[in-house]
Amino acid sequence: MKTFYQQVNSHRSIRKYRPDPIPEEVLNRILSAGSRASSSGNMQPYSIIVTTNKNIKKELLPHHFDQPMVMEAPVLLTFCSDFHRMRLWLENNDAPENFDNFMSFLIGMIDATLASQNVALAAESEGLGVCYMGTTLASNKKITEVLTLPKHVVPVVGFSLGYHDEQPELRDRLPMNGIIHRETYQDYTTDQIQEIYSKKESDGMKRYMSHPELRKMIDESGVGNLAQVYTKIKYTKESHIKYSMDVLACLKEQGFM
Amino acid sequence: MKTFYQQVNSHRSIRKYRPDPIPEEVLNRILSAGSRASSSGNMQPYSIIVTTNKNIKKELLPHHFDQPMVMEAPVLLTFCSDFHRMRLWLENNDAPENFDNFMSFLIGMIDATLASQNVALAAESEGLGVCYMGTTLASNKKITEVLTLPKHVVPVVGFSLGYHDEQPELRDRLPMNGIIHRETYQDYTTDQIQEIYSKKESDGMKRYMSHPELRKMIDESGVGNLAQVYTKIKYTKESHIKYSMDVLACLKEQGFM
Repeated sequence: MKTFYQQVNSHRSIRKYRPDPIPEEVLNRILSAGSRASSSGNMQPYSIIVTTNKNIKKELLPHHFDQPMVMEAPVLLTFCSDFHRMRLWLENNDAPENFDNFMSFLIGMIDATLASQNVALAAESEGLGVCYMGTTLASNKKITEVLTLPKHVVPVVGFSLGYHDEQPELRDRLPMNGIIHRETYQDYTTDQIQEIYSKKESDGMKRYMSHPELRKMIDESGVGNLAQVYTKIKYTKESHIKYSMDVLACLKEQGFM
Repeated sequence: MKTFYQQVNSHRSIRKYRPDPIPEEVLNRILSAGSRASSSGNMQPYSIIVTTNKNIKKELLPHHFDQPMVMEAPVLLTFCSDFHRMRLWLENNDAPENFDNFMSFLIGMIDATLASQNVALAAESEGLGVCYMGTTLASNKKITEVLTLPKHVVPVVGFSLGYHDEQPELRDRLPMNGIIHRETYQDYTTDQIQEIYSKKESDGMKRYMSHPELRKMIDESGVGNLAQVYTKIKYTKESHIKYSMDVLACLKEQGFM
């Protein structure tokens, strides 16, 4: 058995899965580990949607930008900030209403994310693989419709889950002195920034150039370095402004603004 | 050594600490486990502020609502959504700017929260205790000032960290059928809600009544059940609307709206 550190420090995102289903008792055990995560006021203002049905996954597929793992992984988990359940309970008990505001959404978002990481680590401790999908947030309005979420429920994080059919390399990480600050924030000099990102630049560029589709985009766009790949190709300002508007619209429609 | 499940399933929030400092190698090991958490596009858009200095903790104390553990725990960790560092790197590399919008803040918030849970579990695997503080988010404007955070850095989650000086009971959790939904969201009937919350009602009310200060507030306010404790005493609508406005103001001031 791996120790805690051996497991956590060897995390890779898994995008290729064998079709084997996940035994019910394994699934229940890893989901239950999620419920032990810390929760604000012990309210547990989140829900976990377990999707295995091919037709529903097919409906989710375009909202997860057609990533093949959506269909190939036996299970998709969608973690939602959920104050709907608690508000029903308040209503049943003549308690004043609350939790229909931005702060409540964020509290539910944090608790859903903490639970998700417990579930992810529990899954990895069972030999399963996961890959978080940022599209859960970016497409949360459309996913809300497919998963028939009531008001005061909003998807925030999600991942594919199943048995590995690949063994990818460990990804690079920034050096610890790049992300840790002692006592208060210690701002960076230009030289420090270049040093912090130097390994990422070489490893990252190599990774993207080995990817035929991304290489073509990089060659055609005349992008010269990894920083430009990030904001000319992967994450443009226009796309992030669109997602910002979409997520705000979803929060409004779901009663959180 | 505890197995993964033995550890995760025995998590308690620790609010009383021995004054013993945390050895530097232990601290580095648990923080490093944080950096292995999944990260959107592997950007790691977060920073971790490690505060041990008594004077700085004293400045933070009122913003954490004067909880004694802020002074008693040897270490406070504050996890921030941070696109400042990445934007410096973009600027140094003639890349178009981005990440000064709501979507970027949320991406950093998710990644900071995933990293925080890795750090929390790593700490617990070393025999340390943690207690998340929701005040990190509620007071994020004031905490931003104390920790001298530049624009595009916003505190989202944080916890006290140190060696236990208490061994609290395991807290109640909602039954798993209360938080798991198969395929799509399965809405609740009134009876289901009462059943899901029944254990929480008895355990929660017992807990609050055993707390002299809370008991006094409950007796004086004529609150009759746990649901009312939640929204008449602990989390009023007025307080959550104020926090919503404060957090939005902080996001605006820090350049994320």
